[in-house]
Amino acid sequence: MSTVPCRTACGIMRAMNLLLLHPDDQLDDALWQISGRRAEHLRRVRALVPGQRVPAGILNGPIGTAELLSDDGHMQHFRFQGDQVAPPSLPLTLILALPRPKMLKRILIDATSLGIKKIILLNSFKVEKSFWQTPELKQSLLFEKMILGLEQACDTVLPTLALEQRFRPFVEDRLPALSQHSLRLLAHPGEHPSLPAGLAQQVTLAVGPEGGWTPYEVDMLRKAGFACHSFGQRILRVETAVPAIVGRLMKLP
Amino acid sequence: MSTVPCRTACGIMRAMNLLLLHPDDQLDDALWQISGRRAEHLRRVRALVPGQRVPAGILNGPIGTAELLSDDGHMQHFRFQGDQVAPPSLPLTLILALPRPKMLKRILIDATSLGIKKIILLNSFKVEKSFWQTPELKQSLLFEKMILGLEQACDTVLPTLALEQRFRPFVEDRLPALSQHSLRLLAHPGEHPSLPAGLAQQVTLAVGPEGGWTPYEVDMLRKAGFACHSFGQRILRVETAVPAIVGRLMKLP
Repeated sequence: MSTVPCRTACGIMRAMNLLLLHPDDQLDDALWQISGRRAEHLRRVRALVPGQRVPAGILNGPIGTAELLSDDGHMQHFRFQGDQVAPPSLPLTLILALPRPKMLKRILIDATSLGIKKIILLNSFKVEKSFWQTPELKQSLLFEKMILGLEQACDTVLPTLALEQRFRPFVEDRLPALSQHSLRLLAHPGEHPSLPAGLAQQVTLAVGPEGGWTPYEVDMLRKAGFACHSFGQRILRVETAVPAIVGRLMKLP
Repeated sequence: MSTVPCRTACGIMRAMNLLLLHPDDQLDDALWQISGRRAEHLRRVRALVPGQRVPAGILNGPIGTAELLSDDGHMQHFRFQGDQVAPPSLPLTLILALPRPKMLKRILIDATSLGIKKIILLNSFKVEKSFWQTPELKQSLLFEKMILGLEQACDTVLPTLALEQRFRPFVEDRLPALSQHSLRLLAHPGEHPSLPAGLAQQVTLAVGPEGGWTPYEVDMLRKAGFACHSFGQRILRVETAVPAIVGRLMKLP
């Protein structure tokens, strides 16, 4: 499938491998209308003209093709037909100490494109307080990044994203139930067994901030059933560690 | 180890987990002098004062600690003592279709921090010609990105980087000898055996451009002894795929 890049709102060149249609775009059963970034991409980069088709999908719905019916230079109208389902997702819940805003955008795109469907951004002692105040945490912006990840990976199923600004109540009160039917892993530097590989079972993975979880936080996570595993002796950036750990840990369908 | 961020030339917040001393910085046996980005980081972010020590290493040399002797606000003088060796590297040669400049910076930092010591940037039919003209390909800039990767991962051994602008002569004439004592893998979408995991042996991995290698290129690489392996059905950005594939493929020491 072609991966012609488009310039997104965040200014980074990306591939839009799937035209992702949102519920708001629907005019009637098979008729859809878009404008803005997606239309610009199809017009300028793909040079799509009426009568041509592109791979398309409906947000949280089926995948198929969309035929361009008309383009007035602003609005594009499509007929969508879809009978395929979204690609398999990873049975992985990612608990991530809130990364700095620049990293967060990239990690959300990467995590979504890898097929992760549940992401929890958690506070940690080493998370700068200011990260919780940043405009990048607006739901609309987080949503946009995950949409880019879906368009990249030809997926339609939006991950659920939770922000947990208080470490202790979350880990003590909610995490045990939330992770009870999964293998609970903590990626943590030190003399621990190395992370397992190629898992197909339910996994809950906790990845710390730069500098790692504090001993108190590790202790709390252990009490919640998480086991420490090491991932080599190198200190990796979080946005490098997440794909590397997920690539090792999970059997990518 | 602390991972206090610093603002690098490329404007991205990064961690400098190791003060990496370059041969030019040496005044005499144990006495070293630095200025610029590294000094700024130690001064502003670490608030390092004379008498204090930081983890340090010598480019392509040993690792130890550096004691700040003096700081005139411009130049910093250090006494370095090192008896540790750099962390183990990955027995992996990465052959990568030249990514677009924005991606290339990030991939060089990631690949270096992961411990890859041999990187070959190769042309491919789907690599935009303009990528070969970009200023980002200046050796000094590529060097800077790999240095950032070393500082991140507390490593001192600079990877070797080769630019191969002509696909066929490289793959036909030089690649077979260059990869002869390694497992030769081609990450390619389609119905192929999935990539092996947790390898400790010599590996040469070829990763295509967005949109993949052309059938002709795949055929040429196969003739050079490379076997196609799939890495799941999702289309990943190259900067996501590289850490994910390396994390799966190699046993990270």
